[in-house]
Amino acid sequence: MRLATLIAPGGSTTTAAVVTDDTATPLRFSDVGTMLASPNWATAASGPLPDPIPLDMPGLSWSLPLRPTKTICVGLNYKTHIAETGRETPAWPTLFAKFPDTLTGPFAQITVPNASDQVDWEVELGVVVGKTIKDVDAAAAQAAIVGYTVVNDVSMRDWQRRTTQWLQGKNFERTTPVGPVVVTADEIDPTRPLAIQCWVDDELVQDSVTSDLLFSAAELVSYVSRFTTLRPGDLIATGTPGGVGSARTPQMFLKPGQTLTSRIEGIGTLVNDFVAP
Amino acid sequence: MRLATLIAPGGSTTTAAVVTDDTATPLRFSDVGTMLASPNWATAASGPLPDPIPLDMPGLSWSLPLRPTKTICVGLNYKTHIAETGRETPAWPTLFAKFPDTLTGPFAQITVPNASDQVDWEVELGVVVGKTIKDVDAAAAQAAIVGYTVVNDVSMRDWQRRTTQWLQGKNFERTTPVGPVVVTADEIDPTRPLAIQCWVDDELVQDSVTSDLLFSAAELVSYVSRFTTLRPGDLIATGTPGGVGSARTPQMFLKPGQTLTSRIEGIGTLVNDFVAP
Repeated sequence: MRLATLIAPGGSTTTAAVVTDDTATPLRFSDVGTMLASPNWATAASGPLPDPIPLDMPGLSWSLPLRPTKTICVGLNYKTHIAETGRETPAWPTLFAKFPDTLTGPFAQITVPNASDQVDWEVELGVVVGKTIKDVDAAAAQAAIVGYTVVNDVSMRDWQRRTTQWLQGKNFERTTPVGPVVVTADEIDPTRPLAIQCWVDDELVQDSVTSDLLFSAAELVSYVSRFTTLRPGDLIATGTPGGVGSARTPQMFLKPGQTLTSRIEGIGTLVNDFVAP
Repeated sequence: MRLATLIAPGGSTTTAAVVTDDTATPLRFSDVGTMLASPNWATAASGPLPDPIPLDMPGLSWSLPLRPTKTICVGLNYKTHIAETGRETPAWPTLFAKFPDTLTGPFAQITVPNASDQVDWEVELGVVVGKTIKDVDAAAAQAAIVGYTVVNDVSMRDWQRRTTQWLQGKNFERTTPVGPVVVTADEIDPTRPLAIQCWVDDELVQDSVTSDLLFSAAELVSYVSRFTTLRPGDLIATGTPGGVGSARTPQMFLKPGQTLTSRIEGIGTLVNDFVAP
């Protein structure tokens, strides 16, 4: 099942929906996050449903699918990206947090802040938690994963590297696009080599496969659950493959007027135009 | 004004209250955080009020005063603590985040997790935001500070140091006590040398003054507002002075059966018993 949160024509209300390539079937929840927190959502999503509407209906647009209470990101988790940073293979996942305000929609414009000259890209597999879990092993963690989405952990490298802690460079408001859909875990297996790619305008800048992950989705969910509770709709961004702008020679950063495209095979594609403040 | 969130006898409801040393006047808000988000809270807190109740009323207990949407912590912000870590004086604040689930009440028991052998203490001045602000200077940030509280940023040093990013060692669930009160900014000035102290059982382990802060409360609020919106009830923990257990020779960590006491002059005292799981 492919789940999305759509903004109704007029822009004042949102609805969760089951989507296909060209239709959306609205569900009785305001967004995918709220839906996942409802114990009977799967029944509601398969029960008697209204007629599908065309996705190209005028005025219909795509929202951030969910607003997680916890968004936890992983650094240094693709073997290729670890190699390009010159670091050793880590024994533990490197974790940091994003605030809900940092996330934005799959096709949202993103502002290049005046305060940063080093706006970089990081396409990532997003893991969406479907159950409330604490201190669980990898098998229980896998069973708690409800689906997968696409994230671009857009990073202000100058701010990120001001101190040892990355938080400030990872949390400029509304700079991390998520979506466009959450694909349920029965339909996709990221331990297989799904293409994960990122383009700046027409240039392919990241091109890897999700099976290159050092710590798997289930291992990451289990690890985080050792110290904090994860709840339905919480999001783990699993790290980015090689090809970020700050690791190129010469370095390359996003400028107003450019378009960032982020794709994972079997999930979908984010398209975000970067604009001046 | 000294604001607290109290748990009513029976434990099922909480109320915001104005407290003195021995009385509490309940307000019409469920907690201090909810109150601060109400635009007319100051009027409600001074308007016709019920009779005060004694703070030693049987069954009355103290809650975490607020559940911030954002809790941002600062590392390396006391000149004495920077010296004991051997680092250079930083040009920028070192920031990391805590999840709401990480916080706990001012007199709550705290579990020493099986997973950590290095549970350390960090008494800190907590700054409570009272307005919605984004991208403001230090003067506007100072005007947006509604009050101050006491925080102990209890840290699992073994987990904190597994990777470059501290998040996982700073976010064990319900390990960061906050409170007991929020003292409004008209009554206290932490740029003066207020004593900030921490004891393990009867041993004084941290003993400094809030005027030793490198980045002031207003500077920190302004800095954070450059990249993300702060809202009423949000909390900034401003860093800890020297004297943490991991910097002692030999090192010293908290064990079940010990009591951690955290005090800031003019605000109040947290008392937390550490227990086995």
